[in-house]
Amino acid sequence: MTKPISRWPVPEVADLPEDLRARILEVQAKAGFVPNVFLAFAHRPAEARAFFDWHDALMLRDSPTLSRAEREMIIVATSAANDCLYCVVAHGALLRVYARQPMLADQVATNYLKADISERQRAMLAFALKVCKDSGALVDADYAALRGHGFSDDDIWDIGAITGLFGLSNRMANMLSMPPNDEFYLLGRQPREKKS
Amino acid sequence: MTKPISRWPVPEVADLPEDLRARILEVQAKAGFVPNVFLAFAHRPAEARAFFDWHDALMLRDSPTLSRAEREMIIVATSAANDCLYCVVAHGALLRVYARQPMLADQVATNYLKADISERQRAMLAFALKVCKDSGALVDADYAALRGHGFSDDDIWDIGAITGLFGLSNRMANMLSMPPNDEFYLLGRQPREKKS
Amino acid sequence: MTKPISRWPVPEVADLPEDLRARILEVQAKAGFVPNVFLAFAHRPAEARAFFDWHDALMLRDSPTLSRAEREMIIVATSAANDCLYCVVAHGALLRVYARQPMLADQVATNYLKADISERQRAMLAFALKVCKDSGALVDADYAALRGHGFSDDDIWDIGAITGLFGLSNRMANMLSMPPNDEFYLLGRQPREKKS
Amino acid sequence: MTKPISRWPVPEVADLPEDLRARILEVQAKAGFVPNVFLAFAHRPAEARAFFDWHDALMLRDSPTLSRAEREMIIVATSAANDCLYCVVAHGALLRVYARQPMLADQVATNYLKADISERQRAMLAFALKVCKDSGALVDADYAALRGHGFSDDDIWDIGAITGLFGLSNRMANMLSMPPNDEFYLLGRQPREKKS
Amino acid sequence: MTKPISRWPVPEVADLPEDLRARILEVQAKAGFVPNVFLAFAHRPAEARAFFDWHDALMLRDSPTLSRAEREMIIVATSAANDCLYCVVAHGALLRVYARQPMLADQVATNYLKADISERQRAMLAFALKVCKDSGALVDADYAALRGHGFSDDDIWDIGAITGLFGLSNRMANMLSMPPNDEFYLLGRQPREKKS
Amino acid sequence: MTKPISRWPVPEVADLPEDLRARILEVQAKAGFVPNVFLAFAHRPAEARAFFDWHDALMLRDSPTLSRAEREMIIVATSAANDCLYCVVAHGALLRVYARQPMLADQVATNYLKADISERQRAMLAFALKVCKDSGALVDADYAALRGHGFSDDDIWDIGAITGLFGLSNRMANMLSMPPNDEFYLLGRQPREKKS
Repeated sequence: MTKPISRWPVPEVADLPEDLRARILEVQAKAGFVPNVFLAFAHRPAEARAFFDWHDALMLRDSPTLSRAEREMIIVATSAANDCLYCVVAHGALLRVYARQPMLADQVATNYLKADISERQRAMLAFALKVCKDSGALVDADYAALRGHGFSDDDIWDIGAITGLFGLSNRMANMLSMPPNDEFYLLGRQPREKKS
Repeated sequence: MTKPISRWPVPEVADLPEDLRARILEVQAKAGFVPNVFLAFAHRPAEARAFFDWHDALMLRDSPTLSRAEREMIIVATSAANDCLYCVVAHGALLRVYARQPMLADQVATNYLKADISERQRAMLAFALKVCKDSGALVDADYAALRGHGFSDDDIWDIGAITGLFGLSNRMANMLSMPPNDEFYLLGRQPREKKS
Repeated sequence: MTKPISRWPVPEVADLPEDLRARILEVQAKAGFVPNVFLAFAHRPAEARAFFDWHDALMLRDSPTLSRAEREMIIVATSAANDCLYCVVAHGALLRVYARQPMLADQVATNYLKADISERQRAMLAFALKVCKDSGALVDADYAALRGHGFSDDDIWDIGAITGLFGLSNRMANMLSMPPNDEFYLLGRQPREKKS
Repeated sequence: MTKPISRWPVPEVADLPEDLRARILEVQAKAGFVPNVFLAFAHRPAEARAFFDWHDALMLRDSPTLSRAEREMIIVATSAANDCLYCVVAHGALLRVYARQPMLADQVATNYLKADISERQRAMLAFALKVCKDSGALVDADYAALRGHGFSDDDIWDIGAITGLFGLSNRMANMLSMPPNDEFYLLGRQPREKKS
Repeated sequence: MTKPISRWPVPEVADLPEDLRARILEVQAKAGFVPNVFLAFAHRPAEARAFFDWHDALMLRDSPTLSRAEREMIIVATSAANDCLYCVVAHGALLRVYARQPMLADQVATNYLKADISERQRAMLAFALKVCKDSGALVDADYAALRGHGFSDDDIWDIGAITGLFGLSNRMANMLSMPPNDEFYLLGRQPREKKS
Repeated sequence: MTKPISRWPVPEVADLPEDLRARILEVQAKAGFVPNVFLAFAHRPAEARAFFDWHDALMLRDSPTLSRAEREMIIVATSAANDCLYCVVAHGALLRVYARQPMLADQVATNYLKADISERQRAMLAFALKVCKDSGALVDADYAALRGHGFSDDDIWDIGAITGLFGLSNRMANMLSMPPNDEFYLLGRQPREKKS
């Protein structure tokens, strides 16, 4: 497909700083393709680096009460609220892969109240969507609701910060008109899909 | 999956009036399964009949300037605006099948401005979304824009009426908490999918 | 008055299919005039037929806990939310006639919280307006509130379905720019008005 | 009807300051009843006086290019946007009387884009509704549009100030839960109604 | 600064009616400058007089449970909601002066939920903002909440009426494009500022 | 003042990683105090580092057509739209300092259409606010408008990315309930204030 992946110039991988090039080659080896966000954001290496560092700090933090699939769920729900095609499709794929549920991403993107998720996860998404759409209105009761569902203070930080970071990513992707890679659309949809 | 398909009782196909039963058996023969809307709406046969008649009048009308795929596109875009999981997933499948484009439905559901569609189709969806969200604000210029793209007056009626009919269907599906059949999620996603 | 009753062609009654013509002659005999909706929608007979069938199924269903006046109240409140002149004026007239309260329609159309209605009716309209404006956000508590006021499950279906059907009708009337018949404006306003 | 006309105490006319009493007796002589706003606002005589003075300055100003009926039209359209039952009904009556058009008020209150008014009046209401709903977004083009329709600078001031004053009145009427007098509902609806 | 203080002509103080001139000279003697609102509104003396009378009735009423600083707080919060530069800056200055808190106005204007105010004051502003943005939705519970915090019925009237009056003033200031006097920006910001 | 600067624990500067400690000591030496954001965000050092790196990449980039003051203007306008007290007050101070205009920040925070800025700056803020509030609706004309005012493609990236980054920062500050340092409120307000 020849549609450009950004309204701005996209660098060649070979021309990138060593750390970004290594990161891109690593994801390519693992996924079999380079997600467009790596190339489109690399037009500004320092900013790309900050994004990927922040991403890893939030998405790879180990917590018994906030799984990787739940973190992807937050991204999908809030990216849909922000009308971001790239993130809904790319992170929808990751959600399917991590949750091993081929139908979950479409549910969370369209209407999380109708999704096959737990009450606890619904509370998590309600908090995330409030941070996404009206963070100035957060009150004590919002935090108490999450604690009542067993989320730790570190989890709450993560829920809000993931929402914030991908709110930034959504705005960048929309501004760059960055399309999702074709590969993401189908990823994780076959019921017996296994996460490598 | 044992999740109920409606908050209201769902009739047995065998107990339905002859015309509804025939219609259901026909769709089952063609699709290989019975879409939940047929069973959930059949709790009220007269209303179900009216819906399916109206549906056929609008969706099966032949027009050289408004294809079946475009009609499904209208349903997907406006159902997403109405947060209706059933219609986004079920008609997303039909859109993929009729358009033979496995990625189109996710694009239209998330943000039609980023979808791989023509300017003409973008104008069609802009009109549909205005009917969906603020029909009282329609003015002459809105109709003129569609005519400028070659839509006939019959097409314009269809665009608005499809939006209206599925706005009703969205509200029913949301009120009934009607989930999409599992089959719809994957339908038409494989690139070589053929419409039978 | 020579203002057209639709942006689309309006058929002659004599040219209509027998069943629609009979229906129109019946309403004319009863009301003394033909409401514009019958003529404007009849531009597409199959769709008109579906609308009137659906209308009758919902509006004529007998229930000790959901009167005809209450059904009209739902139409007036939600049509006002949808900025639909035809339905506010025409069903406002019907509401006055069925409720035998000459001031009720203006109250319900402007602000149902200030209308002379019962708490039970206020709950009914709150549910209808949620279906009208944000059906994707319906949760169990919304249904429980209606049941707490004595509405049956069949009543709840009717409340939501009437809202949905007239949401479609509102969008059609707005798209067609269909004006109310002059007769509706004054109907039922004289205190001693009797329903024939 | 024994429903109170305000959530706050309502004074006896006999107990009011001389100027307010005179004003009330004058309106009563002319209209045949005392509009509730005179009594409900008179709970605070100084504020009532300011309101009536401001009202007269704006509503009675003579202009060849902004009639009394048009001034009432502004009140009806913006009061409907503010969900104010008292003002929609009471000024709807005055609009019918001044314009000698029994159907105009219902049209303007429900959707001014569908009302039987001129392009010039539509521009006037568009400006008023912008002042009503988003005055901070007014730009030069908004004033130019009115001047292009022949409104003078004094007319523009009036259009905006009437909107502002009745925005205040709407908020007071809603806070007081002030119902319209029964008389207003029917006033000016009979085609041959004459303004005395 | 030579920027005009209104889109309409501004009268000379010497040419104004005696009572308005006296009022202006008095505020000038006290404040050291004439706030632009006095001159810009005086283009229409009768309306200016009504505004200042209404203002004094509401802002100078003595109440042990609603201080002058709290009244200014209401103006600042609601004027920010109405995007009114003049009132946010001018009444922000008055709030700093009356409350003797140099940081309070910026907090209330930006997000009162984050301001250093009491729960009681937060309830007061929640009511005011509901009157400002959605007065038609006021219900009994809103009044009960204020009474629960010790506000009298006269206080509640004041809270709503101040909101209403400055909603009018906000719309006028936005329509006139009335800038705040430069003096207001800094007034009351030095911690040891004393009200003369 | 003893109000906590975050809902989460705040680290001691001495306990921080060397690079963050150095950065904090540097800002303290320059400003005379440590802005709360440095301490509150440092609860998560990796995330804080990413934020400050991203901040520097965007705010310190040299461009003849997008000054540091204009960058701060973007932050103030969009942070006000996000109801973020910390950023409106802290970056309002920086805007005053960089622009050497003591009144500008209050204007931009309240209503940029009334601010003493150029048409070019108004276009810049219109784009930023669209990225902030509705980035999914960006179309070619939005970019063309900026280019028409002489902004380079790099400037446009910066305008959108600053909006995105501070949208994240606004959500974090709101979630942490992070108050601005007292020092920011007065900074740059005295007309002869000099930037060191």
